[in-house]
Amino acid sequence: MNETKALEIACPLPLNDHRHIKLAHGGGGRMMQQLIEDVFVAAFDNPVLRGGHDGAVLEFPHGRSVLTTDSYVVRPLFFPGGDIGALAVNGTVNDLTMCGAEPLFLTASFILEEGLETEKLWRVVKSMRSAADAAGVSIVTGDTKVVERGHGDGMYINTSGVGRINHDTRVGPKRIAAGDVILVSGDIGRHGMAVMGEREGLAFTTPIESDCMPLWSTVHAMLSAGIDIHCMRDATRGGLCAVLNELARGSSLQFDVDERDIPISESVRGACEVLGLDATHVACEGRFVAIVPRGDEERALYVLKSQNESASMIGRVLDGEPGLVTIRTPIGGRRILDMPAGELLPRIC
Amino acid sequence: MNETKALEIACPLPLNDHRHIKLAHGGGGRMMQQLIEDVFVAAFDNPVLRGGHDGAVLEFPHGRSVLTTDSYVVRPLFFPGGDIGALAVNGTVNDLTMCGAEPLFLTASFILEEGLETEKLWRVVKSMRSAADAAGVSIVTGDTKVVERGHGDGMYINTSGVGRINHDTRVGPKRIAAGDVILVSGDIGRHGMAVMGEREGLAFTTPIESDCMPLWSTVHAMLSAGIDIHCMRDATRGGLCAVLNELARGSSLQFDVDERDIPISESVRGACEVLGLDATHVACEGRFVAIVPRGDEERALYVLKSQNESASMIGRVLDGEPGLVTIRTPIGGRRILDMPAGELLPRIC
Repeated sequence: MNETKALEIACPLPLNDHRHIKLAHGGGGRMMQQLIEDVFVAAFDNPVLRGGHDGAVLEFPHGRSVLTTDSYVVRPLFFPGGDIGALAVNGTVNDLTMCGAEPLFLTASFILEEGLETEKLWRVVKSMRSAADAAGVSIVTGDTKVVERGHGDGMYINTSGVGRINHDTRVGPKRIAAGDVILVSGDIGRHGMAVMGEREGLAFTTPIESDCMPLWSTVHAMLSAGIDIHCMRDATRGGLCAVLNELARGSSLQFDVDERDIPISESVRGACEVLGLDATHVACEGRFVAIVPRGDEERALYVLKSQNESASMIGRVLDGEPGLVTIRTPIGGRRILDMPAGELLPRIC
Repeated sequence: MNETKALEIACPLPLNDHRHIKLAHGGGGRMMQQLIEDVFVAAFDNPVLRGGHDGAVLEFPHGRSVLTTDSYVVRPLFFPGGDIGALAVNGTVNDLTMCGAEPLFLTASFILEEGLETEKLWRVVKSMRSAADAAGVSIVTGDTKVVERGHGDGMYINTSGVGRINHDTRVGPKRIAAGDVILVSGDIGRHGMAVMGEREGLAFTTPIESDCMPLWSTVHAMLSAGIDIHCMRDATRGGLCAVLNELARGSSLQFDVDERDIPISESVRGACEVLGLDATHVACEGRFVAIVPRGDEERALYVLKSQNESASMIGRVLDGEPGLVTIRTPIGGRRILDMPAGELLPRIC
């Protein structure tokens, strides 16, 4: 047995601040990043994992495959514009897509709570099949566990996915360069507000539907147009803000965005104002950030807008303070857009 | 969107008996089989899924890969001979192995309960690394979710796995033929009894440790010895009894075993007698059934015994009643070994 150094040491996570798991450890912000780095990466350490991607890019002699996994614990199970099943398919399809891979196969593993109405399960499973058909993937294997009443929330679903990279574009944080242009594929924050609204029984003036959707056709169109995408990431937990901070850190460069260029629908903007939330912290499930080299930005925007009119160029990568994200405000100032701590919106995916 | 017939119909599961999810739907027996067939296979229907294997065998131009998934909800998290982490690695490694694939890559997805001691998580994660090293696999990507206090049991783990088939032996229920010999790779029932003993605070006369271990090296040795394995399946939920029934059904043949040849340790036998359990229903996590053609059985047994002295030839496949499992009793009778219903031992994996 090849015992590694990691296994002899004490937990590298500073236990004073992290003695017990908190909701924020799953919130997509700083606390989660630290848990991932100091526990999971510390113990499992290997070159693929250190890639820091949404999935694992596996190099085989015959080509590159991508493997990815996500568990879904969204509450409630059904929300405007989607349900846990559609989310479980699209979320994993999008993780594959963000690695530049064409999604091919999914697994589906269910943790069911004793007492769940079977009809509810059937609705979710049918929704998964519809989402899989729409995304062009097959669900090829699965697993079922049942836990006692009170030990789950109806159901949790894990989907893992396998995709193939059919092009030569290398997509990843390490390719981001100063001068690159930052784009977002559509208006942000709808998924998080839709789930939160449903859960808390909020009546928004204009109903907000989740943006849950598969992204491969959009990314495929960009690649087919010859756009040399340097990096992509979908804005899920922690929202646009977390993605910008993760990629600024991952590339050791500064990201500078303009607040006026960030697309936010009137309904999301209004709901965020009432609730005192920053829309850039709110999760999407069908929006992504694309970083493209200078010169490719107009074509990239053209392709993105052909899929979603609200797509926008929001900023640039600078050779400034490594890992910093700055945002220019409408009144001409500039402030730091810090990583969200992550406890604001639990259980949205 | 390619809407299929499955999506227009009502849930095929007879709702009178299955209106709500019961613990038995996850127990590995008849109820679970029906849920899988009438809900998951009905909705997700595709040729790979219909293979009825422990994992999905994916045919690529360059060779065959296997994809598999399992969620682990064992309670308690730590038990004699293992913990949820070792189980999550070995269980998925073994599902790949049972499809004849060399295990290569795993994903690890955690659903953590708010309030879990971080040190406990660290112990589990270290155990996963040790198990991964022992099985020769890398954990290459993952996911973390946190649910509120009271909505989980400390942690649930999903692992999905990818393996490669590096040989020409086709392994699967369809290859089983009349005349084949049925072997089991070691004494059965230790995992289930170890977990149950720990959970219920039972003091067994002789301590029982889980049999949790990876099986690839054993299977690799059999394949290298040129044994034409027709089918393999690890005896997890539902125990040896469920495996025999599943494979008898999958091959539409009769399985006939001799009770005296089923290896059961004295401690497991004693504990089962006290608790009124049938040892053939109790889960293992490091034992498998192998079905080999007549003529290969002696070499197969030789290889199995070189890894575990208690391995045994337990019966034969007959051209009799399709799907039936019969067992010859020590006093010379013969009875039907029916599929367990599955509610006896919940949460053992």
